[in-house]
Amino acid sequence: MSTRSRLFDVDCKLGYTLTETTDFVFQIHAMQGPDQDVLTESLRVTPSATCHTYTDPHVGQRFLRVQAAAGPLNLRYRARVQVARPRRNPGAKEVPISAVPDEVMHNLMPTRYCESDLLGSAARKLFGKTPPGCARVIAICDWIHRNLDYRTGSSDTTTTACDVFLSRTGVCRDFAHLAVTFCRALNIPARLAVGYSIFRAPPPDFHAMFEAYLGGRWEVFDPTKMADPSELVRIAVGRDAKDVAFATIFGAAQSRTIAPVVKRVAAGKG
Amino acid sequence: MSTRSRLFDVDCKLGYTLTETTDFVFQIHAMQGPDQDVLTESLRVTPSATCHTYTDPHVGQRFLRVQAAAGPLNLRYRARVQVARPRRNPGAKEVPISAVPDEVMHNLMPTRYCESDLLGSAARKLFGKTPPGCARVIAICDWIHRNLDYRTGSSDTTTTACDVFLSRTGVCRDFAHLAVTFCRALNIPARLAVGYSIFRAPPPDFHAMFEAYLGGRWEVFDPTKMADPSELVRIAVGRDAKDVAFATIFGAAQSRTIAPVVKRVAAGKG
Amino acid sequence: MSTRSRLFDVDCKLGYTLTETTDFVFQIHAMQGPDQDVLTESLRVTPSATCHTYTDPHVGQRFLRVQAAAGPLNLRYRARVQVARPRRNPGAKEVPISAVPDEVMHNLMPTRYCESDLLGSAARKLFGKTPPGCARVIAICDWIHRNLDYRTGSSDTTTTACDVFLSRTGVCRDFAHLAVTFCRALNIPARLAVGYSIFRAPPPDFHAMFEAYLGGRWEVFDPTKMADPSELVRIAVGRDAKDVAFATIFGAAQSRTIAPVVKRVAAGKG
Amino acid sequence: MSTRSRLFDVDCKLGYTLTETTDFVFQIHAMQGPDQDVLTESLRVTPSATCHTYTDPHVGQRFLRVQAAAGPLNLRYRARVQVARPRRNPGAKEVPISAVPDEVMHNLMPTRYCESDLLGSAARKLFGKTPPGCARVIAICDWIHRNLDYRTGSSDTTTTACDVFLSRTGVCRDFAHLAVTFCRALNIPARLAVGYSIFRAPPPDFHAMFEAYLGGRWEVFDPTKMADPSELVRIAVGRDAKDVAFATIFGAAQSRTIAPVVKRVAAGKG
Repeated sequence: MSTRSRLFDVDCKLGYTLTETTDFVFQIHAMQGPDQDVLTESLRVTPSATCHTYTDPHVGQRFLRVQAAAGPLNLRYRARVQVARPRRNPGAKEVPISAVPDEVMHNLMPTRYCESDLLGSAARKLFGKTPPGCARVIAICDWIHRNLDYRTGSSDTTTTACDVFLSRTGVCRDFAHLAVTFCRALNIPARLAVGYSIFRAPPPDFHAMFEAYLGGRWEVFDPTKMADPSELVRIAVGRDAKDVAFATIFGAAQSRTIAPVVKRVAAGKG
Repeated sequence: MSTRSRLFDVDCKLGYTLTETTDFVFQIHAMQGPDQDVLTESLRVTPSATCHTYTDPHVGQRFLRVQAAAGPLNLRYRARVQVARPRRNPGAKEVPISAVPDEVMHNLMPTRYCESDLLGSAARKLFGKTPPGCARVIAICDWIHRNLDYRTGSSDTTTTACDVFLSRTGVCRDFAHLAVTFCRALNIPARLAVGYSIFRAPPPDFHAMFEAYLGGRWEVFDPTKMADPSELVRIAVGRDAKDVAFATIFGAAQSRTIAPVVKRVAAGKG
Repeated sequence: MSTRSRLFDVDCKLGYTLTETTDFVFQIHAMQGPDQDVLTESLRVTPSATCHTYTDPHVGQRFLRVQAAAGPLNLRYRARVQVARPRRNPGAKEVPISAVPDEVMHNLMPTRYCESDLLGSAARKLFGKTPPGCARVIAICDWIHRNLDYRTGSSDTTTTACDVFLSRTGVCRDFAHLAVTFCRALNIPARLAVGYSIFRAPPPDFHAMFEAYLGGRWEVFDPTKMADPSELVRIAVGRDAKDVAFATIFGAAQSRTIAPVVKRVAAGKG
Repeated sequence: MSTRSRLFDVDCKLGYTLTETTDFVFQIHAMQGPDQDVLTESLRVTPSATCHTYTDPHVGQRFLRVQAAAGPLNLRYRARVQVARPRRNPGAKEVPISAVPDEVMHNLMPTRYCESDLLGSAARKLFGKTPPGCARVIAICDWIHRNLDYRTGSSDTTTTACDVFLSRTGVCRDFAHLAVTFCRALNIPARLAVGYSIFRAPPPDFHAMFEAYLGGRWEVFDPTKMADPSELVRIAVGRDAKDVAFATIFGAAQSRTIAPVVKRVAAGKG
């Protein structure tokens, strides 16, 4: 299992204007984990606000909880991260239900955005005859890439996998949601993965991919084919986008700036 | 344009138990029209009730309006019908929008069960490259036949074309609704057609097909492939199933009997 | 039954940019009918295009069918219209199903935007105990006005009455769709009515109200309470917005101008 | 904070017929927790099958994973459980977002069956002016009890809170889902709670209630008002019914028996 190691610099700026005291849960910290090493990082919140960081005990992602008063709120998160993700194993097998670890089982369940119960028959008709394993998940990605149009602004925060399956249009999270849904419908545990990604022309934005549980570990896939899964600086994984939103806002905040910039750094640099 | 002439005997029994005075609109009369001739017919309503028949001025279908008191209500409709439907023209062309007759235009609009506005992109992706005309409508029927499972009881009176496109399961009216929806999404006027049909093992039931406007006339298709379109004893055509229900009930009625029997009669017989 | 007569000047401009030959169905002509008299009118289409007007034989609304080549397309419709609508009869009774005229019956059916079958139970719980007749329809309008927020841009061309009942937000057509849906669910025939209306600060826009069949005739209501139903210069009535869209477009057209201006004219003027 | 202690005997039988090797996740074990003590219990699986029990590290519920061969499968779970739930505190306050514990936060998110994002406006309109705290959650229960019809068979495994809000009909889990959805929409953490409950005439069935996070702990409510929350022998809590299904089945199994019987035992008895 070969691994490529790469170095990235993240510089993420978020800006809001609040009309009242507002609570936030941010997920913008790069994840510390077996395939990703946060070498250095800094967070600046201006003006100063009540902050609190919580690390999820299961997968290690971090939640930044902020309560801020009316007025402007600016965040700047910077990090240097080494991503050393093993190459995908194209021969990875599907794990029989009875061998799926207990704590992975919930990744088979339908969620707000991934109605795998409603798309079960469609998934079996489309991919039921594809050889199981990594090849089937690749077939899912290929189908989605061929059949969905990527169109900025075509979906909103209520758009689900079923909506996208009907409309054949979406953005990265919609593509990933549909892939997660097909996987779960076929009894392959799957989850959303979001992070910083070098994936297209400016403006920069957060990117959503997905992970399928194959051969006993989580493999990353990008059905938009816009970015390289081995280059995703992962922030969080979760059941669907509701679990991994970069900002969940309780109150009245207007977004001014969303600028999550990531750059590849030459190995010896720094 | 060759035409086959066939003779059918219809014997349709409906039975209800009413717990209060109830209004009905029935559509059970065979349609009198250019490709169908009602030779003899009789209707018996027991016990006697206030009845009234209305003939739609556009397409000639008949609505039987009944107001009946609490208690049992039984209808028996019998008819001998000659169906002389022209053979389908496999070379029939799609009619450009500008040439669609004014009174046919509304058959391009989405309806309660046929959300052609939501499935436009899917329809174009699936059938956009198929040669236009009758061949494209046949391709739609073939796709539906291949991709949908016919399962009695899998849908109800709220099931729409989108639901069926997601679940990949339905009964004859669901198959027809999806076909109508794809046609309209591709700018081919289409409507539901229901009637008496020799289409499978008992119990007998009403059957739904659909019609597409091709080459300047309405061609009948059956995406379930369970019956022969040239043998449909047509009762009604309409935008979707809401327009052509065999019984629309205003009040509290329990259905006891639905037995619409149709038999082919040898030409010289009778 | 007293009637107020009022005079209006309509000046409606529509502008599009077409990237290919495109077909349109416009509904912008004021309706000629018992409660509305088109005194003078003119239509200018520039550059000249293939035009054709069709008058619906039932209710008298006019469809303007246009096929235009790539490039700009501009329409200007001007009319002086006398609206002499009888005052609403607050004591108007609901018509029992058995007395609803045959040709009105279809206004009891659910449609693409008005899923009266899905909201039947909610309608009966909300309005089942209200005295039947005009008072009940007024109660429906009041409930909608109290419980829905009018917000420009909150809905789109796929938004249905159920969506609005969930989101509690919409624009005039959404308000009217929900009212139509509640009425039909309560066995009151109802339909959408659109037209020119003096209803708020600029920019001018088409307005949607609805009509309920009470006491043997169609009464107009505006659940947004933004305009006076007796001042609606009616363009069309229909099952729902799909039947009465001011523009249905088959092809690729970008809207540049929507400016339907209407002004009240002093009686002696002109 | 007074506590009532009660003793219950659970005797739960489940029976299936499998047509192939099938995997199950059962949740039928009574929960061991601060307000509930499992005094004795036994589980019998016949014929013998591969079984494995997993205890969720957060809330303590148990998952029984079973892989069984084709043929019959029978489970019998028996337990004596002491429920000592503190009386509900009617003065319990809502917890401000900033004080909600990190591990409770996810109970504010929408899920497959609880689309709190779609019902936010409706929740605020219905309950926004109710005094916050326990009183508001009681108002939610009262509204649901008044406005929803309990009807066995009216919903299925795809029915969501939005569906129920539209149809005004459901069973216990639907009532609980809608309550959870309203709470989350109002920023009150809420979750589904299922278990054994003495709630109505035979046949016995599992019962669903819900819990709201008030005053720093989880309070149990039953919007069906069919059972006493202080008498629920809790099996599991979760985001929604997908997390706490008594049986999740991977394969082809036909249910033969669902008989979860619970009886109150006199304190000194046994």
